[in-house]
Amino acid sequence: MNSTTKEQQTAGGVAGDKYPSRLYADARIVDRKDPVLYSEWSEQSPISKEQSDFYEKNGYLILDQLFSEEELQAWRRELRSLNEHYRSLEAPHVIQEPESREVRSIFAVHDHNETFKQLANHPKLVAISEFLLGSKTYIHQSRINYKPGFTGKEFYWHSDFETWHVEDGMPSMRAFSCSIALEDNFVHNGPLMVIPGSQNQFISCIGQTPDDHFKQSLRRQEYGVPDPDSLTALSRQSGIETMVGKAGSVVLFDCNTMHGSNSNITPDPRSNVFLVYNSVENKLQAPYSGQRPRPTYIAARD
Amino acid sequence: MNSTTKEQQTAGGVAGDKYPSRLYADARIVDRKDPVLYSEWSEQSPISKEQSDFYEKNGYLILDQLFSEEELQAWRRELRSLNEHYRSLEAPHVIQEPESREVRSIFAVHDHNETFKQLANHPKLVAISEFLLGSKTYIHQSRINYKPGFTGKEFYWHSDFETWHVEDGMPSMRAFSCSIALEDNFVHNGPLMVIPGSQNQFISCIGQTPDDHFKQSLRRQEYGVPDPDSLTALSRQSGIETMVGKAGSVVLFDCNTMHGSNSNITPDPRSNVFLVYNSVENKLQAPYSGQRPRPTYIAARD
Repeated sequence: MNSTTKEQQTAGGVAGDKYPSRLYADARIVDRKDPVLYSEWSEQSPISKEQSDFYEKNGYLILDQLFSEEELQAWRRELRSLNEHYRSLEAPHVIQEPESREVRSIFAVHDHNETFKQLANHPKLVAISEFLLGSKTYIHQSRINYKPGFTGKEFYWHSDFETWHVEDGMPSMRAFSCSIALEDNFVHNGPLMVIPGSQNQFISCIGQTPDDHFKQSLRRQEYGVPDPDSLTALSRQSGIETMVGKAGSVVLFDCNTMHGSNSNITPDPRSNVFLVYNSVENKLQAPYSGQRPRPTYIAARD
Repeated sequence: MNSTTKEQQTAGGVAGDKYPSRLYADARIVDRKDPVLYSEWSEQSPISKEQSDFYEKNGYLILDQLFSEEELQAWRRELRSLNEHYRSLEAPHVIQEPESREVRSIFAVHDHNETFKQLANHPKLVAISEFLLGSKTYIHQSRINYKPGFTGKEFYWHSDFETWHVEDGMPSMRAFSCSIALEDNFVHNGPLMVIPGSQNQFISCIGQTPDDHFKQSLRRQEYGVPDPDSLTALSRQSGIETMVGKAGSVVLFDCNTMHGSNSNITPDPRSNVFLVYNSVENKLQAPYSGQRPRPTYIAARD
């Protein structure tokens, strides 16, 4: 293991890579080299000064009442209808639970589905994305996560940017995720957890990525996994926050904010729509791993 | 499956069994036939009237400051020392995590270990146990649960009494558990969850128990598992409560209170000492499954 990794260390690495990862035999913590917030706040901004400051400091923000009950109902109906549709169908962009084969995630819904295309282009979300990223934006990735009751599996800690950078070729930290709860998020049904302030440090992960790794990683993460010591260090700085909110609440979080979720044994499902906005000035390059890019239903390339 | 279960239904079943389970092809909800609280509260009782009423109504109670910091430190030292001791040893009463082989639980610590024997005989706990159960008591089962950071696995919903009745031969609901937190329990590190009021209904579980089932069940539960519809019905009545508290806090819960916990991906471990007090008037009979009893390190028989 050590010798292979040393070899990589000499062989691998892309010139100008601000955030090298999966190249070294040990974990490294690197300071962020990009802004978190790309605009100056003004009276015209789509969120308040307090919200803007909170997001810049903590790397996440909860917005409680962005959408109407009618909008929420329409998305829920579509969610159920897509679940029915894909329960008996296999499709590359549909991920099933490893054990039960229940539908876990459906990717690229902003592309394949009229309802969620409209949601991705919702004027409120577009305004927020252009404010946070300081430019026009586009959807880098979208998906529905079902996280069912009783059997919802955990998602281990990760920085999305680490994967998008190494496996998809996203050059800079100029993207964020928007998770829209379609059911109530309680402390008990495996809600999203974030480490506040973690967006300011990049955990360079240990080890190399195998080809076609993504087919497994969407079910169970094995590469691009932060090491326990780095996670402990990050969480000792400012703790762990649990994203609790009513159906319809929205969590925005920076592409490098460390996040994850525990399992969900409760009867309460916790499905959500997940949209990633990227700046048009941050379009994907060749993956920094030197490997071939993941499919476009996981990472839009145009 | 159906025909086997029908056969059992004719063959199985013990005369006078108040809580038949694992005998039928369908789940059944049976009303509790025993008291929850076996004493009348008085000024001399070891908990307040409010606490006593809360316990009787909800089937659980959190006590925050029962022990001194010195006592807590001594138990933590012993916990670490036992973990070191059993990390490289195999012993029947020591259960390891299915994947990592880390120590998950050590049983019968009230019997094998002087420190935890003293804790089990702590005058405050003995007084509470005699008040709740209305008689002299003894330890039916004890264990340390390590629930480590990063890899702590979930415990699915269960009523302890269902197992103690079917597999150990505990006749009546006249026992309770006492879980003493040796680390802080946050909402995020897989704390104990209970369904308040669930102690008043017994979920008769589906299916039969194989011989020597306990060897697997302590790692992963497969029998005596309540069905999703019954769990949903119970939780719709009064929700789910999460047991959060500082190190040293104690959760008492009735033997039939439905409980479980999600996984723990956070760096914060959540180890606890777990003591089950049973009434001397409720000593174990032959298991209601008709099978041979589990070992005495899991269920004390004298």
